[in-house]
Amino acid sequence: MSDIKRIGTGPRMSQAVIANGFVFLAGQVGEPGTPVADQTRAVLAQIDDLLAQAGTDKTRIVSAQVWMADMADFAEMNAVWDAWVPQGQTPARATGESALATPDYKVEIIVTAVL
Amino acid sequence: MSDIKRIGTGPRMSQAVIANGFVFLAGQVGEPGTPVADQTRAVLAQIDDLLAQAGTDKTRIVSAQVWMADMADFAEMNAVWDAWVPQGQTPARATGESALATPDYKVEIIVTAVL
Amino acid sequence: MSDIKRIGTGPRMSQAVIANGFVFLAGQVGEPGTPVADQTRAVLAQIDDLLAQAGTDKTRIVSAQVWMADMADFAEMNAVWDAWVPQGQTPARATGESALATPDYKVEIIVTAVL
Repeated sequence: MSDIKRIGTGPRMSQAVIANGFVFLAGQVGEPGTPVADQTRAVLAQIDDLLAQAGTDKTRIVSAQVWMADMADFAEMNAVWDAWVPQGQTPARATGESALATPDYKVEIIVTAVL
Repeated sequence: MSDIKRIGTGPRMSQAVIANGFVFLAGQVGEPGTPVADQTRAVLAQIDDLLAQAGTDKTRIVSAQVWMADMADFAEMNAVWDAWVPQGQTPARATGESALATPDYKVEIIVTAVL
Repeated sequence: MSDIKRIGTGPRMSQAVIANGFVFLAGQVGEPGTPVADQTRAVLAQIDDLLAQAGTDKTRIVSAQVWMADMADFAEMNAVWDAWVPQGQTPARATGESALATPDYKVEIIVTAVL
């Protein structure tokens, strides 16, 4: 059996789970009610932080899902994403519209990376 | 080439696919038209059963996506989830709102585990 | 550290990322504004092509997510899917409704395969 490590383990979920050379992050959200660009920046900062705790970084993300409460915010989210994602090392990505836990959340991003 | 095993293989999908030390489950749904708590319990029981057939269990889930037809059912789903998820071994999780195959389905859960 | 290979790397995302024996594809979409069957066929052809470039094929897909802009198109998408998916080697799959990047996109499919 392979070893499993977890980061930020709460009663409902962990913020990151590391197993078999992969790191799976929980869906990250920003400060509810703030503008989508701010929420995206907060999400990406949390992803950087969790990946660092796991011993990897954003150049090693293999896939990302971006869930947006309103696809009208697509361009604003992308502007922040594009400035953050490492050129030449971009992950596979998919973006869809999905209402999130409360209407104050505008974007949630889920990533998987390798160590 | 790595070996692939499948469980519950139908013409459209398999209920579980095992490869490279991981188990990928199809999105699980409960009995259409029943209350969300009942559907959640049914989903989690099916997940337990499929993981057992694959030779693993809920302590080894690395990530979960919860798709809810109506986020108004969030608390009711979470109550069932929280009673089921193994404390200290919770997976990375994301929850979003998504209409499912028919309106009678209230929740669908997708998990990935390691052997 | 494991090696990572990418296919179709653009400034925002890569079309495929290969690492640790897995291939992660970006969400694939068809020609906006065309019928859902045509979009589904285009998506599956792109998946075949990307998997071939990665050195694998549709018999080695472990999981798929199908995001549909309107679940009313479910049967039409499934007819194309069912004719394409290799019998006896079907992946784990989940289907949900999600508005996509623009309303002209009717279906987006995300797959993960093994080498």
